[in-house]
Amino acid sequence: MMKTTTLQDKIVIETIHPVKDFQVVGVHAGLRRSERPDFTLIYSERPCTAAGVFTTNYVKAAPLLLNMQHLAENGSNMRVIVTNAANANACTGEQGLQNAQLTAEWAADKLDLLPQQVFVQSTGVIGVQLPMDKIANGINLAVENLSEDGWDTAMRGIMTTDTRPKAYSLQSKHGYTITAIAKGSGMIAPNMATMLAMITTDAAVPQPLLQKALHAANGVSFNRISVDGDTSTNDTVLVLANGASGVVIGDDNYADFVAELTAVCTDLAHKIVLDGEGATKFITIKVKGAADNESAHRIANTIAISPLVKTAFYGADANWGRVLMAAGRAGVPFDQSQVNLWFASETASPSQLQVVANGTPTNYEEAEAALIFQQEEIIVTLEVGTGDGHSIVWTCDFSHEYVSINADYRT
Amino acid sequence: MMKTTTLQDKIVIETIHPVKDFQVVGVHAGLRRSERPDFTLIYSERPCTAAGVFTTNYVKAAPLLLNMQHLAENGSNMRVIVTNAANANACTGEQGLQNAQLTAEWAADKLDLLPQQVFVQSTGVIGVQLPMDKIANGINLAVENLSEDGWDTAMRGIMTTDTRPKAYSLQSKHGYTITAIAKGSGMIAPNMATMLAMITTDAAVPQPLLQKALHAANGVSFNRISVDGDTSTNDTVLVLANGASGVVIGDDNYADFVAELTAVCTDLAHKIVLDGEGATKFITIKVKGAADNESAHRIANTIAISPLVKTAFYGADANWGRVLMAAGRAGVPFDQSQVNLWFASETASPSQLQVVANGTPTNYEEAEAALIFQQEEIIVTLEVGTGDGHSIVWTCDFSHEYVSINADYRT
Repeated sequence: MMKTTTLQDKIVIETIHPVKDFQVVGVHAGLRRSERPDFTLIYSERPCTAAGVFTTNYVKAAPLLLNMQHLAENGSNMRVIVTNAANANACTGEQGLQNAQLTAEWAADKLDLLPQQVFVQSTGVIGVQLPMDKIANGINLAVENLSEDGWDTAMRGIMTTDTRPKAYSLQSKHGYTITAIAKGSGMIAPNMATMLAMITTDAAVPQPLLQKALHAANGVSFNRISVDGDTSTNDTVLVLANGASGVVIGDDNYADFVAELTAVCTDLAHKIVLDGEGATKFITIKVKGAADNESAHRIANTIAISPLVKTAFYGADANWGRVLMAAGRAGVPFDQSQVNLWFASETASPSQLQVVANGTPTNYEEAEAALIFQQEEIIVTLEVGTGDGHSIVWTCDFSHEYVSINADYRT
Repeated sequence: MMKTTTLQDKIVIETIHPVKDFQVVGVHAGLRRSERPDFTLIYSERPCTAAGVFTTNYVKAAPLLLNMQHLAENGSNMRVIVTNAANANACTGEQGLQNAQLTAEWAADKLDLLPQQVFVQSTGVIGVQLPMDKIANGINLAVENLSEDGWDTAMRGIMTTDTRPKAYSLQSKHGYTITAIAKGSGMIAPNMATMLAMITTDAAVPQPLLQKALHAANGVSFNRISVDGDTSTNDTVLVLANGASGVVIGDDNYADFVAELTAVCTDLAHKIVLDGEGATKFITIKVKGAADNESAHRIANTIAISPLVKTAFYGADANWGRVLMAAGRAGVPFDQSQVNLWFASETASPSQLQVVANGTPTNYEEAEAALIFQQEEIIVTLEVGTGDGHSIVWTCDFSHEYVSINADYRT
C-alpha cells in the first residue's frame, strides 16, 4: 500500500564512510520474493572487541541466545555479523538453535574463521524455520561480493517493513570512523524492539569499555523510542571495534567516544521513529519535575504508547486531556493541581503554547494549538511537580496505515 | 461514521426489572447537540447503603473526588446518582470541584435531600468546564420525569461513543432485584477505564458488606476488560442498596448475592468490550500455568493491550508469534520451551487448535487457524509453565474504525 505521507522523506543519509579493514555487502539470497537484498554480511579483516545489548523480552529468538553466548565467551575476538531478513528464527525451538549455529559455522567455514567469531541475526516472521538452502546461498554470494564500499546494499539487506534504509556515519576528530546501519519500524518499544543496529568502528576499544559505552549510548537513544509499545523477540544492537585506525580509546578520549556513539545511536533511533509503521508525525515527549528520572521516564513512556494519545496526534487534535490521562495511569503518583503542559513545534507560530497551568486549561487559542498539531514534528512538555527528575521519549502517531500494515503483515 | 460490523448486535438487553422504591430517568439537558438523552438521574425513595470503586488514574475528575468523600462520610445514607454525558469535568481545577459540588446541591435541593446524599458523575471531553445552566436544566427535567420504569432513557443518558445502551437486570430467588446500567467503549483498560456503571438493588446490604461484595465482583469483571489499555480519569462503579425488598444480606445469602452481583458486572463488562471502539471481534485471553494469578494476569493483560496482537485479530491473521512476543514482554519470567498455545472458537470446526507445543509450532493446518480467526468470538489459551496461576481477560481487536473514531473525537 502507498504511503501518502512525507514523514519518511526526513530520513536522509549523508555520506557513508568506509571503516578501515571492514568489508560489507547485502545480497539477494532468495529469502523474500522480490529481488531486493535480504542477507547482509559484515566482516572485519582483523579481530574485534564487541559489545551488545539484547531484547528484554523473555521470548528470545534463537540467534540472540547464540550471540549472547559468543559475546560472553569470545567478546574480544569477534569478526563477523551475518543478518537475514524475512524470517526471525524466533519460537523455533531446538531446530532454530541448530540453524543459528549452522549459519555461524557455514559463514566461519567460508571465511576461514571459528563459528564463535560470528554473530548471527534474523528479522522477520516468527515461528517459521529458516530456509537453510537460502542461508547457504546468502553466505556464498555475500563472501564473493564483500567490499569496503558495500554499505549501500548492506543497509538494504536488513530491511523488513522499513520503507527507507537507515545508516549513519561519522569521522571522529581523533582519527577513527564509526559507521552503522539499522532497521526497524514496527514492534518498537523502549527497552529495545524489532530493531537491529550494527555499529562498526576502527577505533581500538577494550571490551569492557566498549560494553560500558554502548550501555550509555543505548540508554538515551534506542531505549527512548516507541512506535507501538511492543518489544520484539529479536532486538539487538551490536558493536564491532577492530582497532585498524590505531587510535586507542582510554581515559583521554572515552567521553568523546561515548558522545559520538550516542550521536550515532540517536540518529538511527530517530530514523526508526520517522519510519514508524504508518507514521505521519514525529513526536518528542519531555517530562520534567518528577521525583526522579525513572519516574519521569515511566510517565513519558506511558504517554508515548497510549493509543488515545497517538490517534489524537494522527487526527491533529490537540486533545491535551488524553496526555494528562495517560500520565496519570503511569503508576507514578503526582499532584494533578501542579501539572503544567506545553505543546510546541518549531514550524508553527507561535512555536510554543502552554495549554495547562496548575492542572487547569489556560485561555489558549484553540486555533494556535491546532496549528501546532498540524505540523510534522511536535514537542510535548509535561511538568508534573517540582522534582529534578526528567526524561525524553520519541514516538510517532497511530494511523489507519499502521492498522493496515499490521493487519495484513503475513497474509 | 457507519460501523460496518455486526459485533455490536450481540449486545442484547433482556427485560429490565424495576427496582422497588427506585425512580430513574434520562433526559435531554442540552449538553449535546443531538436530541438524545444526555443527563440521567437515579433516585431512591429511601436511604441506601452505597459502595463504589474508582479509577486508579492519578488524574481523577472532580466528581470522583466528591463521590469518594460522600461515600466515606455518608456511605449508609445515600439517595441519588446524577450523571451527565458530553463533559467529563476532569482537569477543571477548583472551578470543576465547585461545579460538581453545585450539581449535588441543586439536585439535593430539588429532591429535598442533603448534598452529601448525592453522587455526581460526568463523562465526555476532558478539560472543559461544565455548562451549569444545562446541568440545572437537566436536574429540573429529570426530577419532573422520574419513574420506576425509566431505565430505557436512563441507560441512554450516559452514553458517549457507545453505539448501544447497556443494561442488565436480574431477579434473585431470594426476592430482591438487581438492575444496572453502564457506559463505556473507549479508554477501557483493566483496573477500570472510561466506564461508568450504576447498580441498584432493593436488597438490604450493610455498607461494609456491600463494599466487599463490589470489590469481589469488580475484580473478576470490569477489572478484566481492555479496549485500548488506556485508563480514564472518571471510571466509577457505584452500587445503591435501599432494602425495600425487606431481604437482608447476611451470612446465609451473601455468597449468592456476590455471585449475582458478579453476573451483573460480567454481563456489563462483556457488553462494553462488544461495543469497543471499532471492535469487530470479541477475544478471550486465558493464561494458565503461571507461578501465581497476578503473574498470569499481567501476561494476559499485556497480550490484550498489544497493538500488534490486536491488529492481527482484526486482520484475521493467526499470527501466534505476536501472542508469544507480547507474553514475553509482560515482565514475568517464564521458560519459552514450556509454552503451549491454543486458538479456539465455538463457531469454527475444529473448534480448538494447538498451534504451539513446548515453544515450537505444531503441524497445524494454516487454513484451520485462519478459520478460527475469521470468527467473531475467539479464545486464546496460553500455558506458560506448570504453576497454578491463571487469569482471564476480555478484549477486542484494533481496527481502522478505532483510529477514525479517536482521531476525530473532538473535531
